[in-house]
Amino acid sequence: MGSCSITFLPDNKTVVVETGQTLMEAASAAGLSISSVCGGEGICGKCRVRVQAGSVASSPNLFLSAQDEEQGIVLACQSQVQGDVTVEVPPESRNGHVAKLVTEAVAHFERAQKPEEKRSGFPHDPLVRKLLLELPAPSGSDNICDQDRVLRALSRDRSLPSVHLGLNALRELPTLLRQSDWKVTAWLGYADDRLEVIGFEPGDTTWSNLAVAVDIGTTTLAAHLIDVNASETLGAVTKYNSQARYGADVISRIMYAGTKARLRELRAAVVGDINELIAALAKGAGVRPQAVGYVLCAGNTTMTHLLLGLDPSQIRRDPYVPLATHPPTIRAREIGVRIHPCGLLSVLPSVSSYVGGDVVADVLMAGMTETEEVSLLIDLGTNGELVLGNSEWLLCASASAGPAFEGGGITCGMHATEGAIEWIRLGARAELLDCGVIGGGRPLGLCGSGIIDAVGELLRAGCIDRRGRFIADACGQRLREGDSGDREFVLFPAADTAGTRDIVITEADISNLIHSKGSIYMASECLLEYVGLGFEDLSRVYIAGGFGSHLKIDKAIEIGLLPDIDRQRFQYIGNGSVQGATAALLSRPARRYLQEKIAGSMTYLELSTYHKYMNEYSSCLFLPHTDIEKFPSLAGKELKAS
Amino acid sequence: MGSCSITFLPDNKTVVVETGQTLMEAASAAGLSISSVCGGEGICGKCRVRVQAGSVASSPNLFLSAQDEEQGIVLACQSQVQGDVTVEVPPESRNGHVAKLVTEAVAHFERAQKPEEKRSGFPHDPLVRKLLLELPAPSGSDNICDQDRVLRALSRDRSLPSVHLGLNALRELPTLLRQSDWKVTAWLGYADDRLEVIGFEPGDTTWSNLAVAVDIGTTTLAAHLIDVNASETLGAVTKYNSQARYGADVISRIMYAGTKARLRELRAAVVGDINELIAALAKGAGVRPQAVGYVLCAGNTTMTHLLLGLDPSQIRRDPYVPLATHPPTIRAREIGVRIHPCGLLSVLPSVSSYVGGDVVADVLMAGMTETEEVSLLIDLGTNGELVLGNSEWLLCASASAGPAFEGGGITCGMHATEGAIEWIRLGARAELLDCGVIGGGRPLGLCGSGIIDAVGELLRAGCIDRRGRFIADACGQRLREGDSGDREFVLFPAADTAGTRDIVITEADISNLIHSKGSIYMASECLLEYVGLGFEDLSRVYIAGGFGSHLKIDKAIEIGLLPDIDRQRFQYIGNGSVQGATAALLSRPARRYLQEKIAGSMTYLELSTYHKYMNEYSSCLFLPHTDIEKFPSLAGKELKAS
Repeated sequence: MGSCSITFLPDNKTVVVETGQTLMEAASAAGLSISSVCGGEGICGKCRVRVQAGSVASSPNLFLSAQDEEQGIVLACQSQVQGDVTVEVPPESRNGHVAKLVTEAVAHFERAQKPEEKRSGFPHDPLVRKLLLELPAPSGSDNICDQDRVLRALSRDRSLPSVHLGLNALRELPTLLRQSDWKVTAWLGYADDRLEVIGFEPGDTTWSNLAVAVDIGTTTLAAHLIDVNASETLGAVTKYNSQARYGADVISRIMYAGTKARLRELRAAVVGDINELIAALAKGAGVRPQAVGYVLCAGNTTMTHLLLGLDPSQIRRDPYVPLATHPPTIRAREIGVRIHPCGLLSVLPSVSSYVGGDVVADVLMAGMTETEEVSLLIDLGTNGELVLGNSEWLLCASASAGPAFEGGGITCGMHATEGAIEWIRLGARAELLDCGVIGGGRPLGLCGSGIIDAVGELLRAGCIDRRGRFIADACGQRLREGDSGDREFVLFPAADTAGTRDIVITEADISNLIHSKGSIYMASECLLEYVGLGFEDLSRVYIAGGFGSHLKIDKAIEIGLLPDIDRQRFQYIGNGSVQGATAALLSRPARRYLQEKIAGSMTYLELSTYHKYMNEYSSCLFLPHTDIEKFPSLAGKELKAS
Repeated sequence: MGSCSITFLPDNKTVVVETGQTLMEAASAAGLSISSVCGGEGICGKCRVRVQAGSVASSPNLFLSAQDEEQGIVLACQSQVQGDVTVEVPPESRNGHVAKLVTEAVAHFERAQKPEEKRSGFPHDPLVRKLLLELPAPSGSDNICDQDRVLRALSRDRSLPSVHLGLNALRELPTLLRQSDWKVTAWLGYADDRLEVIGFEPGDTTWSNLAVAVDIGTTTLAAHLIDVNASETLGAVTKYNSQARYGADVISRIMYAGTKARLRELRAAVVGDINELIAALAKGAGVRPQAVGYVLCAGNTTMTHLLLGLDPSQIRRDPYVPLATHPPTIRAREIGVRIHPCGLLSVLPSVSSYVGGDVVADVLMAGMTETEEVSLLIDLGTNGELVLGNSEWLLCASASAGPAFEGGGITCGMHATEGAIEWIRLGARAELLDCGVIGGGRPLGLCGSGIIDAVGELLRAGCIDRRGRFIADACGQRLREGDSGDREFVLFPAADTAGTRDIVITEADISNLIHSKGSIYMASECLLEYVGLGFEDLSRVYIAGGFGSHLKIDKAIEIGLLPDIDRQRFQYIGNGSVQGATAALLSRPARRYLQEKIAGSMTYLELSTYHKYMNEYSSCLFLPHTDIEKFPSLAGKELKAS
């Protein structure tokens, strides 16, 4: 087999690979990241690249239009190199691997990242800390061993429990102590109830104390680099979960994980993602990944099982018993996460098989357990999670929503990162009046809030009916038949975008969103019914999710995702999962509160056996609902009949 | 390079190796163990084999006599194979690798192994234990996770602290619990203050709870397999420490360990030895090494540092500060010790650089801290250790004695195992009247007590003078000039032995012993002088060491090793190190007593800077002493003048 030289533009990186490898593999070899949700299966259409010179073997694909083909656009994962090639990676294909969360999003996280201000009860008492030790040199009259010299100094801090000094940290001591003239910094981290030495560093390095908070979503991961001393978020990145290639939802992943080898494969996939995220965060902050001492992950129960290589099979079998809801804190290297060699890793506690640490974190960030007033929290992830309650009780449920809220399964969907359309405004004859693009430049695609907003706007403008089908008269020339035969509405022609393709919404996209929103709305109704309350009894509705911070509540109500109550009662809390993990990193009392108060008081309502959920779900597959009485503020509005 | 076929007799094992490999390497490839102290350097002369057919490339060696060469005897480590060879491994070369400690020795250990009887204060409360868990199967109304189901059951035993259930044990749970119908055995071990899960086993396996106690001597290792439930010793084995190839004493090993790679080399050597000992013990008991859940090691401070890969360099540098006197308990696999994959390993605490956990264990077994009467303990190892004191105070010292007490550095020396001469009796004209051989058969060599006894007997019979030189007239025909030019006394001609060589004592052997005994005696005097006491103030003198249980106290006094006091005050306690480790395995209070009471109350007297030790040492290089007044019971006896 011969080899060929592949050059990627605009980075102008060249790599030599063997004939027959895919452009995706070549890009990976070149250290480039190309968007992909499906992990190279050719079923997400995200990895579009343009062949500028040379040729590749590539079969026709539903995701590529005739126009695309004319322009030399192919899917990188479905194209095998046959000789030297020059390939351009267009902007819309560059954001998918590790993407930096841009200003608006980070700004939001920065507001949220000081839990001691937001949640006044929680002091700064981090899971990971540094202590400067200025030790007396040993002498004839003070010749205790190095181990005891260090432990004696640490025991002087009365606020610390006794410290466990393991073999690895111990081994470095003699040389380190003597080379640094007995002035060293001890890096300590809590592994559950025990304070472990992560390592020692020469001199005073107390100024640097980094940790990473990770939200492990079924579809999307988000990671924040935390300056633990300053309680500041130094960076935030996101990427799709590489496990997606093994199945889009938790059930299909659990089924895939049926053997030890496959369980390892799934673990390796998400660990690889986390390593990429940490590497990107470290690069952004100008440090090495080894400068990170602690990783705290929040995710649903299946995600944390897969991360730790714990068999999740019982999660989907009656009586739905997970293996572990509060797995032990481990050394990150035990599962292959690359930070400091003795750095620690833990996960936020779960409640049950379908209520994970991510939701527990959401509840913390919403503050719903701090008042007697009843509120509802909705986390719009692939698995939608809902929590109802107050300081006395919490009832939760989970509803499979699909990846639409994260831009997954949507033709031009993308993360809520630079280039994502967050909202649009249509005028008469479906004219595009205005839109909001994260970062302010030309658009690349639609993030979760953009999709919700676009469908709501299409409905308001009369371009779709209550079943989500296009109304040709109203759409005018913007409506066309796509290459797949599905009707699609062109929001932006390629020329007006930062990418190479038209930004469209297809009827299938709208149908996906309707199923997602129906599932969430129905779950909300069931939770309330179970405790004998109605939407009018809610003092607040908290919306969590990483889909962009400009969700228009009106539109979300218009499509029937959120209940039709006073708009002032809604509050968007952003990615509560990663924020809650950050709060727990910065405050041990917050972590204890998460475990004891929140996780400990949650009751789970199983919707799959709840009669109302199954019986009435189909009535939610309508915009907003078959029973318009449930949406009184919309009842008077005229829409084109379906 | 060609290959050749090597057959070893009497095992009749054949192995194919490459031309140029040594017979030692070939034996190792054949799974055979040939004696070696020096690890293949050609400087111990222990690996004698007889070439029966074929030829090897072998240079002349001081250890081989002309007669040996005639018989085809070569050193296995110095002989390279050139073609097919048949080799006989004579009995004296077979005992060195892993040797079973025979009845007498084991019987002694069996008496010692029930610490709750011997040391009445210590109840049976082992470091490793098993608990049968009969769990209710999960149901809709009891669907806590597997982790909590197990922890809930464990928490019912009020005598246990909270249990740490790590990732490895957790991973096995779901399958194990369901396949064993919710009846499993939890194997738990104390890692310092924390109770760790070692593993779970299906059904009720509480009947099997094995641990291993190891004495890591500078020259010799001894290991006992302990049935923890029954407080019984199931087997005892010994072998030379393979680190000997890097230096005979702790100082030369510390010097060798100067780089990380060499430190790893030393660790690998002793870990390999421990693995061989454990494998032999397991085989003897008909179990797999994985059936062992805990290894507790006792050794001097340098040995425990090398075992754990801890830099020992400061031990020999002023102010003599070890890295760690109480290293953390670890998973045995962390350093490569092969027992249960999650089995634990710890070491008994040291006091200082030159007083290790082995001596602390000796003090426990002697019981010297349980009375106000002052006693002296002498551990006759390569590093001789001495402890003086009572229930109020303990003063200890260490004196480099060399390997003579363990049969090392002695021409026909060997372990105190089958075939070892423990004592002899000479008659008129140096005629051999009687001798005691461990196991009762023909002799193979001299163990430590045999060497002491033989030198004492030669002195009594007038065959050597007070400087340890042979007196030709008295020795008669038994005295000859050896091949190395050194004079030697033939105890047994080869024909009367179980081996292939004459059993001799050389003038160099006697000189080695005199230096060893002088070092120990001088240290005893210094310790007493330091506290203003004399030998007459001692209520007891305890002798510890693995050199055979038939040490004749009279002879040891006659050569000036032990002080000349009432013989009834001496007590031989055997290998106190391995017994103390066993006691600690079986009783947590005993382990605590070792650490808090014994190690915590010991003061170390540095002899290398103690004027008397340096000034008067040479007066001890005499049998028994230049000042015969120190040995009043011997003063009247007539000896041939030197």
